[in-house]
Amino acid sequence: MADNNWQLQPYLKERVRFVDSALDRYLPGADTLPTRLHEAMRYSVFAGGKRIRPILMLAACEAVGGEMKSVLPAACAIEMVHTYSLIHDDLPAMDDDDFRRGNPTNHKVYGEATAILAGDGLLTEAFILLSDKSIQAAIPPEQFCEVINIMAKSSGSRGMVGGQVVDMEAERSPVDLPTLEYIHTHKTGALILAAIEIGALLGGATSQQRRALCRYGEAAGLAFQVADDILDIVADQSQLGKDVGSDQQRGKATYPALLGLTGARQHAAELRERALTALEGFDLSAQPLREIATYIIDRSS
Amino acid sequence: MADNNWQLQPYLKERVRFVDSALDRYLPGADTLPTRLHEAMRYSVFAGGKRIRPILMLAACEAVGGEMKSVLPAACAIEMVHTYSLIHDDLPAMDDDDFRRGNPTNHKVYGEATAILAGDGLLTEAFILLSDKSIQAAIPPEQFCEVINIMAKSSGSRGMVGGQVVDMEAERSPVDLPTLEYIHTHKTGALILAAIEIGALLGGATSQQRRALCRYGEAAGLAFQVADDILDIVADQSQLGKDVGSDQQRGKATYPALLGLTGARQHAAELRERALTALEGFDLSAQPLREIATYIIDRSS
Repeated sequence: MADNNWQLQPYLKERVRFVDSALDRYLPGADTLPTRLHEAMRYSVFAGGKRIRPILMLAACEAVGGEMKSVLPAACAIEMVHTYSLIHDDLPAMDDDDFRRGNPTNHKVYGEATAILAGDGLLTEAFILLSDKSIQAAIPPEQFCEVINIMAKSSGSRGMVGGQVVDMEAERSPVDLPTLEYIHTHKTGALILAAIEIGALLGGATSQQRRALCRYGEAAGLAFQVADDILDIVADQSQLGKDVGSDQQRGKATYPALLGLTGARQHAAELRERALTALEGFDLSAQPLREIATYIIDRSS
Repeated sequence: MADNNWQLQPYLKERVRFVDSALDRYLPGADTLPTRLHEAMRYSVFAGGKRIRPILMLAACEAVGGEMKSVLPAACAIEMVHTYSLIHDDLPAMDDDDFRRGNPTNHKVYGEATAILAGDGLLTEAFILLSDKSIQAAIPPEQFCEVINIMAKSSGSRGMVGGQVVDMEAERSPVDLPTLEYIHTHKTGALILAAIEIGALLGGATSQQRRALCRYGEAAGLAFQVADDILDIVADQSQLGKDVGSDQQRGKATYPALLGLTGARQHAAELRERALTALEGFDLSAQPLREIATYIIDRSS
């Protein structure tokens, strides 16, 4: 990398703290009625998430010289959307997972009905936060409408939710590479791309910068999923926080299953290169984005 | 009523057609990928809903002399939010209902997983529509941010979703009248009030008109639920489209259970009077709102 002194781990740690403390401020308190619901919402938000999406949003803003505090509410909103999707994905009718990041899943602690509603509450809370004038005072109204539109589109039926549906259908029949790419560009990629695009927009990116960052976001989002598929095979359980090989057992289509482990690693490396190339016109402010793309791949190799 | 020639039924019928055709335009087509998901979303939206919330929104706009076409997207969005809440309420983990308005519920047709995601998709679609600049071009951006905020707050964990959680908890232990009022002002009332408030706002209401319409919306929203509780006891199944007395069997707290049938009817009549009183300063443009408040109560007496 250009700056060898630059340290990713302390940077990530500091950003996680920054995002966590904002999430704590923006979420309804656990003493807000109905308390059990708010407790359930908070349980999953604070269950050890790596805050990849908020961190990418902050880093995209930083890359174009924007102010972090103008992105912080949207960064928290995207983490709420991500958390809602995990709660619903884990439900017995969906992936039926008992553990997530080493902790019991929401429905194991609060029951299915409350878990469904906690997910619904978090998704809705994201839009409350994004449209809150007192919190978003510094941002012109037409800009936060665009932010809301990006967030909603990327997480809806033609984005994340759509990817989840095709992923479920794929469990019943063998899928090819284009279908697998569809699943991941939608299920995981869409929200990661949204994080980057919103960060760029609120950071004041030129349209050229925004397009370049979107190219980065597309490649990084897919790389993230390829790496996840590889990790599901090679990691030990403590690293993963869920059962090793659980995708395989479930008959899920994965990159290693379609391309072989070596092929999947090669694909991940290509995606990293594509992400880094997209950032060529940026200065050192984009260093966190560069390091994150590398880190995403490295954790699986 | 002031205008005896005024006909509610043809008015409602025409508005249902108007809203239905807009919903058909705004929702992703059943041939949009993933097709099964969009089919499931459309199935519940077009399962015979009475469009009470969109019609109230249009009527509130009309009452202050606003243009209906400026409210139509928001009217469709609120129906999407309402439909998502029904799909999730009917799930086996929640109310476990097999029929809704005489038709099999979403999960009975598409399976639980798709039903959860169809609900998620509809909730998100509402916010896509509300933040779509090309559709909302006539409305100033700061106004549609306020609309999004009202919609999200009324349907989130401190609104509709919160009411649903307390309603579920109430099945396990006897509830008193204040708890029952909490359930209904949140579970049903919040979204009806939002319909009225958004209609007023987009119709260009003065702040005095808006406050008066909100008083109407609060009373009408509660009246609607009291009437629903009464109907659950007195209606025959063809009128209800679900099992008669199903609330009672489930041990749900209802107004007739707490106040007796006569007491519940009296309460409904008081709420209607409160709704009508709120409209005293309005001219004939508010006639539909007046007739709807009366109709809500009459259908249960």
